[in-house]
Amino acid sequence: MTDSNTKGSRGERELVNYLYDDGWGVMRSPASGASTLNDLPDVLAGNGWKTIAIEAKVCGDDVLYIPPDEVEQVIDFAGRFGAGAYIGVRFDIEYGDPSYGADYPGWYFFHPEDIYRTDSGTYRIKKETALAEGTPIYEL
Amino acid sequence: MTDSNTKGSRGERELVNYLYDDGWGVMRSPASGASTLNDLPDVLAGNGWKTIAIEAKVCGDDVLYIPPDEVEQVIDFAGRFGAGAYIGVRFDIEYGDPSYGADYPGWYFFHPEDIYRTDSGTYRIKKETALAEGTPIYEL
Repeated sequence: MTDSNTKGSRGERELVNYLYDDGWGVMRSPASGASTLNDLPDVLAGNGWKTIAIEAKVCGDDVLYIPPDEVEQVIDFAGRFGAGAYIGVRFDIEYGDPSYGADYPGWYFFHPEDIYRTDSGTYRIKKETALAEGTPIYEL
Repeated sequence: MTDSNTKGSRGERELVNYLYDDGWGVMRSPASGASTLNDLPDVLAGNGWKTIAIEAKVCGDDVLYIPPDEVEQVIDFAGRFGAGAYIGVRFDIEYGDPSYGADYPGWYFFHPEDIYRTDSGTYRIKKETALAEGTPIYEL
């Protein structure tokens, strides 16, 4: 497992724990390769009112690029399941940084159709866009 | 992994594949121990109208006993998530046996509150009860 995967996995656990502590029922997908079905989101959560399928990304840069197939698979799964499809991204934001709020993980969420796409179709989320326009975790 | 676990895992894949082919979005829980949250069902499935959390059991005998804590964890998860809680059981039934129908896996489902409990609180499902009163997979 690469450092990048380790970091992503830790970030994803953080997301899962936050949602769980907030009262959601949360399931992470089995590790890639362990599943027979390929189009699984990273996280599936429900709270009795809403069900959300999340492709979760941890980004160490200021811009996140996501290949179209990764977005399509969460859209496909969400359509089957009857869930809302979200891309969740956590940029490197220090806990307690007063600019971003002190006591929640720095995750921001977008519906796929609201994400900018490059000429080649790649999805692109800038850190500044996430902070300005993304849905913070406590508003999911 | 014991033979019993292997059998259970194969049966669970069969269940997942059946639901997927039937149009459901389906997620299996990560292997025990891989999760930080303990109260996960074996399978979580949704089809846009219904969401179901399943504790899945493969049984080689004519009677299945389930400890109360395994049932409680699927009830707890389903309550958080906003899903229906089910115990799913697959007894040894030959495919194509005309007594049970030819072309679907021999899985039957019960809501926990409809399952007989012994004096000690253990849940008990007999094979004959499953066939007579359980919900077959295609009626989920």
